[in-house]
Amino acid sequence: MSNKVLAFTTDFGSSDSYVAAMKGVALGIAPDLTLVDVTHDVPRHDIAHGAFVLGSVYRYFPAHTVHVAVVDPGVGTSRKAVALVTPAGSFCAPDSGLLSFVLNDHPTADQARFESMEFGTPVRVPVPDGCEAYEISNPAYRLEPVSDTFHGRDIFTPAAAHIASGLKPEHLGKPLQELTLLNLFALELSKDCVAGKVIHVDRFGNVVTNIPASQLPRGDVVVEIADTKIHGLSATFADVEGLLALIGSHGYLEIAENLGSAARRLDIGVGGTVVAHVR
Amino acid sequence: MSNKVLAFTTDFGSSDSYVAAMKGVALGIAPDLTLVDVTHDVPRHDIAHGAFVLGSVYRYFPAHTVHVAVVDPGVGTSRKAVALVTPAGSFCAPDSGLLSFVLNDHPTADQARFESMEFGTPVRVPVPDGCEAYEISNPAYRLEPVSDTFHGRDIFTPAAAHIASGLKPEHLGKPLQELTLLNLFALELSKDCVAGKVIHVDRFGNVVTNIPASQLPRGDVVVEIADTKIHGLSATFADVEGLLALIGSHGYLEIAENLGSAARRLDIGVGGTVVAHVR
Amino acid sequence: MSNKVLAFTTDFGSSDSYVAAMKGVALGIAPDLTLVDVTHDVPRHDIAHGAFVLGSVYRYFPAHTVHVAVVDPGVGTSRKAVALVTPAGSFCAPDSGLLSFVLNDHPTADQARFESMEFGTPVRVPVPDGCEAYEISNPAYRLEPVSDTFHGRDIFTPAAAHIASGLKPEHLGKPLQELTLLNLFALELSKDCVAGKVIHVDRFGNVVTNIPASQLPRGDVVVEIADTKIHGLSATFADVEGLLALIGSHGYLEIAENLGSAARRLDIGVGGTVVAHVR
Repeated sequence: MSNKVLAFTTDFGSSDSYVAAMKGVALGIAPDLTLVDVTHDVPRHDIAHGAFVLGSVYRYFPAHTVHVAVVDPGVGTSRKAVALVTPAGSFCAPDSGLLSFVLNDHPTADQARFESMEFGTPVRVPVPDGCEAYEISNPAYRLEPVSDTFHGRDIFTPAAAHIASGLKPEHLGKPLQELTLLNLFALELSKDCVAGKVIHVDRFGNVVTNIPASQLPRGDVVVEIADTKIHGLSATFADVEGLLALIGSHGYLEIAENLGSAARRLDIGVGGTVVAHVR
Repeated sequence: MSNKVLAFTTDFGSSDSYVAAMKGVALGIAPDLTLVDVTHDVPRHDIAHGAFVLGSVYRYFPAHTVHVAVVDPGVGTSRKAVALVTPAGSFCAPDSGLLSFVLNDHPTADQARFESMEFGTPVRVPVPDGCEAYEISNPAYRLEPVSDTFHGRDIFTPAAAHIASGLKPEHLGKPLQELTLLNLFALELSKDCVAGKVIHVDRFGNVVTNIPASQLPRGDVVVEIADTKIHGLSATFADVEGLLALIGSHGYLEIAENLGSAARRLDIGVGGTVVAHVR
Repeated sequence: MSNKVLAFTTDFGSSDSYVAAMKGVALGIAPDLTLVDVTHDVPRHDIAHGAFVLGSVYRYFPAHTVHVAVVDPGVGTSRKAVALVTPAGSFCAPDSGLLSFVLNDHPTADQARFESMEFGTPVRVPVPDGCEAYEISNPAYRLEPVSDTFHGRDIFTPAAAHIASGLKPEHLGKPLQELTLLNLFALELSKDCVAGKVIHVDRFGNVVTNIPASQLPRGDVVVEIADTKIHGLSATFADVEGLLALIGSHGYLEIAENLGSAARRLDIGVGGTVVAHVR
């Protein structure tokens, strides 16, 4: 029974050979891998977008899955290549913030320290308890000669395929104590009110905020976004004509338009402000 | 030998995490699945398009394949989630018309009753002889808590993965006697003449009609579409300069343009009328 | 352990059922195949683009991989369907030039004879030493009845799945001595100078030339392209503001723009001229 899973999240698109080169390399190392595309359509160099997509999906994969995540404007510079091992999956990625949601999901990430920082700012956070991180630097587990422009093929995929095949990740390189997180999580909480940000717009124009269901005020909620007020939460897209607010499938407050695009209707994108308060 | 196949047909696109979440869930249930994308680029909420794509491909898959088909504008409403088991494959989908071509391919679908109805109208048809259908309602085979907005992940994929793993589909829920079919199949047949509709335009601009090869009149055929007459059937795209009519790879009468787009040339889309008669 | 790999390179796009039909057929023949998409987004009928993508990726796959490559404006005409077996992979494709880079990589391809020919011209070249080529014509290994418009499903995929399953390729049809190559490789070499062509523009707007690293003059290189001079080679995209020249991950001289699109900046496409000389 084949049960090693490699899952890819990149901004490489699907019209070139970049993704396939990674898969070929992976199959050369571990022929019985199951290869899954998370997406290759992250907008070019948009680390926050990639971080959200990866963060919203990894928990649905078996815990032995190894994710290869590459949105890497700094390829070939001094940014580190890292392997992060968590109880819910392993991740080979540049240390650029692409693992922000994964890091934020784990208990030691320190919400309080983000609150005064600007949305999207990179910060260094400790590797969460119960997780381990290593630099990927051991030439034995890279595709040599390593190119300066395609670490997805030469560094991240080989490391991931070796981990999936049973390599102890400490053989990849020296342990790391801190990783980079983009500050996408800060909320302003007060009595009966929470203010957050848009963190994602999906292909349907659904506007996903960084306000988790658990942080919404109890009671008759009013959502304010882009000078628009939405009264009450809906259960499904089909509930209402026009704009609606609901807890989306990612577990966050989401603004949608039944059969339309809320993002277009509201003319809003990532970083926009959203407030939810009790009427 | 791994030979359980799950095949996905959706309108989720490939830039978000929706498709990958379904695959992660599937691999958590059945690690040795072979996962195949039929397409995720069905135009949003276009059930007829999804139905055509699914209907034109399922017979090429092994009969033990389980299809997950999700084009689901009514997610979270009272439309049923269904599992249809046929001798040529199983299907987990909303009961929205997405299985129209599959149902129409099986013997008891009653062509005559469609003929007076408008193109695209939903009708209730009996589950074909030799097939079985069940509601998917047993919480044991769903991902709990089921969201109101993403049944692809929480209902259809888990059911399909369990069927692929050997679950008897009657354990999913109560048997169903009728399913929804969109009336995409009506032809007007008279001596030496057949009138039908455009049911699909492919990425090349090839215009696929609902006239199967078997219903074409015998003799020197003239095809009339969008005020244009095409004399005779071609064997291949390369046969003719300009517009040509041929029996396409789906088995239907198709209008194509050698090295061009027939749909653009004719300015025609789904629902347009096509007539084939003997000269 | 499943280790049969089928890899697909086509211009079929991902919104229709064409790709999935091929995969269904493949799994019907060999249920334990690993199926990999190289790309289905080759621009329609752009054989040179498909040839480049395939040529830049096949060496990263295990040598037992069988590639199905279909960019086939001549489907249904007299162009042959061929199976090429090389030490670095097998290929089932129309004999249209799609295997140009594979053929050119192997030792007997005769660089000299291309030099006076126009860029992109098809030429007949001998099957390289150490390789074998066969026509795919044996009905036993095709999907009958073979359509006139979809040989990807009916001819190339079945042949590839049978090869992956251990069929001796000589059973597919008669051996071939020559195959078609598009002349994409001609360089004008003089002392301290090489002139070549743009052979590919990737999704990032990186401009890939046909000048391999080994053919660059030694010394302080100046690259001239579209009336622009670029001094020196960079190691990574992040090295320089604006345009830069580097040896890309494909092993060729490449012109890129840090965080931008060199192709757009230079307004250049495939077939454009590039010169590298010593200052």
